Amino acid sequence: MACRPPRSNKLYHMEPPQSHCARPGHGLIAGIMDNEREQGSKFLPKFDAAGLLAAIVTDAGDGAVLMLGYMNQSAYDATRATGLVHFYSRSRDRLWQKGESSGNVLRVEDIHIDCDQDALLIIASPAGPTCHTGERSCFYRRVAEDGSLQRI
Amino acid sequence: MACRPPRSNKLYHMEPPQSHCARPGHGLIAGIMDNEREQGSKFLPKFDAAGLLAAIVTDAGDGAVLMLGYMNQSAYDATRATGLVHFYSRSRDRLWQKGESSGNVLRVEDIHIDCDQDALLIIASPAGPTCHTGERSCFYRRVAEDGSLQRI
Repeated sequence: MACRPPRSNKLYHMEPPQSHCARPGHGLIAGIMDNEREQGSKFLPKFDAAGLLAAIVTDAGDGAVLMLGYMNQSAYDATRATGLVHFYSRSRDRLWQKGESSGNVLRVEDIHIDCDQDALLIIASPAGPTCHTGERSCFYRRVAEDGSLQRI
Repeated sequence: MACRPPRSNKLYHMEPPQSHCARPGHGLIAGIMDNEREQGSKFLPKFDAAGLLAAIVTDAGDGAVLMLGYMNQSAYDATRATGLVHFYSRSRDRLWQKGESSGNVLRVEDIHIDCDQDALLIIASPAGPTCHTGERSCFYRRVAEDGSLQRI
């Protein structure tokens, strides 16, 4: 998760307040590692159980959120090596370069990482619409209060 | 994943090009469901195997990405019911309201959903710094080409 939950839990109390690093089974070394991840200057990506990091992509032009994908180590390495965003496809179990068939690649301008190093923010220049539907962004619908979706 | 991969695979060929809906085991009903998810006006969230949706939070003021969290159905419902962003904590296995102890809540202004309905974009007004480190955004470091992290 991008940011760990706060220490106390007024609304949904299930356990006594405790620090993230002190939770049962977490241990001293894991605690030191967490601290290094948050405060240090080393890239120590925290891949999930499936070996993935979430990667948000925004448009370098205006900051609009374009899509969310997932990277494994190979996808990250390919992204760095080529300067073009690559993801790991969970449904197809393979590496893919965004835009490899459509030509709508995402050129990397900058990469940020979150506090606990399990999510990336990729700032990119898109060569065309990012979504396979032809929309500029995958987030092209609003969820109304009544649960209906409205095109933006 | 937010956007499914393109149909052909020039760079990393492992299987013949095929449509998403026609992949083995995917089936007609799943294909119809995928189409309804992408083109329809119904909220049909696609929770992952752990029952979660990724939720990107941006600042309604300037669109800056503040954090990434995960919501289960209860967290989504609590977010809608209160107008304040709630998440499901994977490490603590519980619902939590962002800012419940710090007071730095995220007030929901709008919710968007992506093409295949497995990721949300929450546009929110933050009451204070979003990151538990005191930074405005959890994405407060850049990953340099050499793998070092630099504060932004």
